[in-house]
Amino acid sequence: MPSIYESMSNAELEAALKQLEQQESEVRAKGLKLDMARGKPSKQQTDLSLPMLDLIDSTTDLTDEGMPADNYGVPNGLPSARRLAAQILGVDPANVVVSGSSSLNLMHDVVVNAYTKGIGGNVPWCKLDEVKFLCPSPGYDRHFAITERYGITNIPIQMRDDGPNMDEVERLVASDASIKGIWCVPKYANPTGITYSDEVVKRFASLKPAAPDFRIFWDNAYAVHDLYDQGDELLNIFDAIKEAGACDLVYEFASTAKVTFPSSGMAFVTASPADMAELRAAFAIERVSPEKISQLAHVRFLKNAEGVHAHMKKHAEVLRPRFELVQRKLQEGLGDLGIATWTNPKGGYFVSFDGPQGSAKAIVALMAELGVTLTGAGATWPYGNDPRDTNIRIAPTFPSLDELDAALDVFVLAVKLVAVRMERSSRS
Amino acid sequence: MPSIYESMSNAELEAALKQLEQQESEVRAKGLKLDMARGKPSKQQTDLSLPMLDLIDSTTDLTDEGMPADNYGVPNGLPSARRLAAQILGVDPANVVVSGSSSLNLMHDVVVNAYTKGIGGNVPWCKLDEVKFLCPSPGYDRHFAITERYGITNIPIQMRDDGPNMDEVERLVASDASIKGIWCVPKYANPTGITYSDEVVKRFASLKPAAPDFRIFWDNAYAVHDLYDQGDELLNIFDAIKEAGACDLVYEFASTAKVTFPSSGMAFVTASPADMAELRAAFAIERVSPEKISQLAHVRFLKNAEGVHAHMKKHAEVLRPRFELVQRKLQEGLGDLGIATWTNPKGGYFVSFDGPQGSAKAIVALMAELGVTLTGAGATWPYGNDPRDTNIRIAPTFPSLDELDAALDVFVLAVKLVAVRMERSSRS
Repeated sequence: MPSIYESMSNAELEAALKQLEQQESEVRAKGLKLDMARGKPSKQQTDLSLPMLDLIDSTTDLTDEGMPADNYGVPNGLPSARRLAAQILGVDPANVVVSGSSSLNLMHDVVVNAYTKGIGGNVPWCKLDEVKFLCPSPGYDRHFAITERYGITNIPIQMRDDGPNMDEVERLVASDASIKGIWCVPKYANPTGITYSDEVVKRFASLKPAAPDFRIFWDNAYAVHDLYDQGDELLNIFDAIKEAGACDLVYEFASTAKVTFPSSGMAFVTASPADMAELRAAFAIERVSPEKISQLAHVRFLKNAEGVHAHMKKHAEVLRPRFELVQRKLQEGLGDLGIATWTNPKGGYFVSFDGPQGSAKAIVALMAELGVTLTGAGATWPYGNDPRDTNIRIAPTFPSLDELDAALDVFVLAVKLVAVRMERSSRS
Repeated sequence: MPSIYESMSNAELEAALKQLEQQESEVRAKGLKLDMARGKPSKQQTDLSLPMLDLIDSTTDLTDEGMPADNYGVPNGLPSARRLAAQILGVDPANVVVSGSSSLNLMHDVVVNAYTKGIGGNVPWCKLDEVKFLCPSPGYDRHFAITERYGITNIPIQMRDDGPNMDEVERLVASDASIKGIWCVPKYANPTGITYSDEVVKRFASLKPAAPDFRIFWDNAYAVHDLYDQGDELLNIFDAIKEAGACDLVYEFASTAKVTFPSSGMAFVTASPADMAELRAAFAIERVSPEKISQLAHVRFLKNAEGVHAHMKKHAEVLRPRFELVQRKLQEGLGDLGIATWTNPKGGYFVSFDGPQGSAKAIVALMAELGVTLTGAGATWPYGNDPRDTNIRIAPTFPSLDELDAALDVFVLAVKLVAVRMERSSRS
């Protein structure tokens, strides 16, 4: 179906442009300074965890089941912290290490372990001529940056409504032993917000990789980040692996960065017993002993999976209006124009937007001129290269509702302006 | 000069052995369980920092000069935390990154950066046939473990009263481009407790390495850990480098692990502007955003260099009696026997002990049998290989004074027993 602009006569198009440029001048005059770029919780959200800071003081018992939180040791993390992490992921605490505040840092270190030492006795990736990672795209730029840093070839994989294109994943993983991993955000994917279907998770668990050191990097960043009581349900990948009779196939990561405080949460990793033994040996040299006073505060504050879910409902109350505003504004502004599509996630931190082919860079650049920072166009693709230049990641969590409202008005205007100008230049 | 046991007749030696074995039986009967193994602060020491836990609660302003402590961002660490770290090390805050709680983890990551990506545009170490590190020995086992993990050849360097044997260091560094680094604990060295002389620091600053990517790993772990008002003075290596007209030569590390809480302190690194730019680029991928609520607590508690020194005096009050007990017990028990020597540090966490050649493994094994854990013999040398098998690291900080007293009695007994048995078997 042609877009509204494609259907216009030249005169109509000129009139539309003139009207939009009038609005553009008005926006420019406002000198806005708004940020819709990164998936940061708002102050309203971080304030929800302030009571945690009252739970540890000089009178607190700083032990956890006899383990000291205030001294060296306990390399796997405090027992109760491991239990909490295991509950969040639905896995055995024996296979969990809680360490540091950043799950991305854990992912990095796991990649480095494979790159420098190899997985399960296989050749370290740094000694191989070529190593490839599959990157469902649009995806998370910071994932892609890790593998790119180590010279690993990032290969985009089509992202669908139910997860990555598994025909493609299965075919590539089974046929190419230089493919060593795949980046996944299986629930409320960054940025599309979709959750992998049971079918997709089962197909992941049943992969037959050509490379024995192939691993799925399962970044369950939004495991508990539902916007509604009825959130998406993600099949437990370790259950699916057991069902499939598989073994060492997945590293799963998560953190409380967007549950309590970004950068001051607790991060954790789980995998098969053999893979965890290998990581523990690496961590014994590189991490030695995790920050545990913060872990203690977390377990006293969140307590257990129920505590986490109760707390996340408060986050949802803050976030729901923002996400709903995005849907309403985009629908009102662009819904009938036939120039754009966007996702409508039930959780997570992003909305994925696709404009006309060849528009994303122009839209983001125009937004910057108009005073609104967006995630860089292309960032959601390996090497920043969105082949159709359509995708923009909208991060509605950090601005206030008023700021978000203003930013979305500018966004709708920018999308229209770019679409009209593109249509106009295609006719000249 | 012959030892007391060497001077004895066979009959005297048998009598001495019999008496010692009588004591041994008595110790065995006690079923002791004491630990003199690792450099952990005692609870008396960690309790000194409990007031820090009262400084952050739900009413605290969680910003630092406008930077949020409770959200993502601020990759170099909070401004006031960087200033505090810079004061501790006597360097420019602009060249400091405060990140995580473990300086050992920072050292690991700096080695990994060199190993995987290379320093200053040079070939990554993982692509070279051989990479070597100099390891002043006895030294710190966890340092040696990092380079060993990455297949780097650890070369022991003689440790003297004023630092490493600089003739050897200069000769090797200038002549062998495969030597890429040296591990140093320049103040209250682990385990000898000596502080590098001004002359040694100046010679370090004047090194002319054959390898452009040679770096000194300057682990200033005990920068502020004096036992007495008049502590050892370490020349500032960056001042010496400036004086020598050198440039990118040193990574310096430290943390508050043994100032506030081990594993929950703040760790930092400093280097030349060019080296820091390279590390920041690495950290932007791997660390992204440091834990900053803990940084905020630290700067509110310690405030500045004066605050740190005042706090460290309290630690010294706890530690001094322990270190003095070690000296007294060793002197009383072994002082006149001619079988052992030991260091007498004015700070830090260790006393380095040398028994008769070929005795250390036997002493540590006997101690374990008698219920006292020591750092493994050989641990202070690369690959656990103390060529003369003499060195034992005594860590007097963690046990209570009573426990330490008991452990030292056992130690003196074990040293004598091993020495007598060695002398006896040499005669048979």
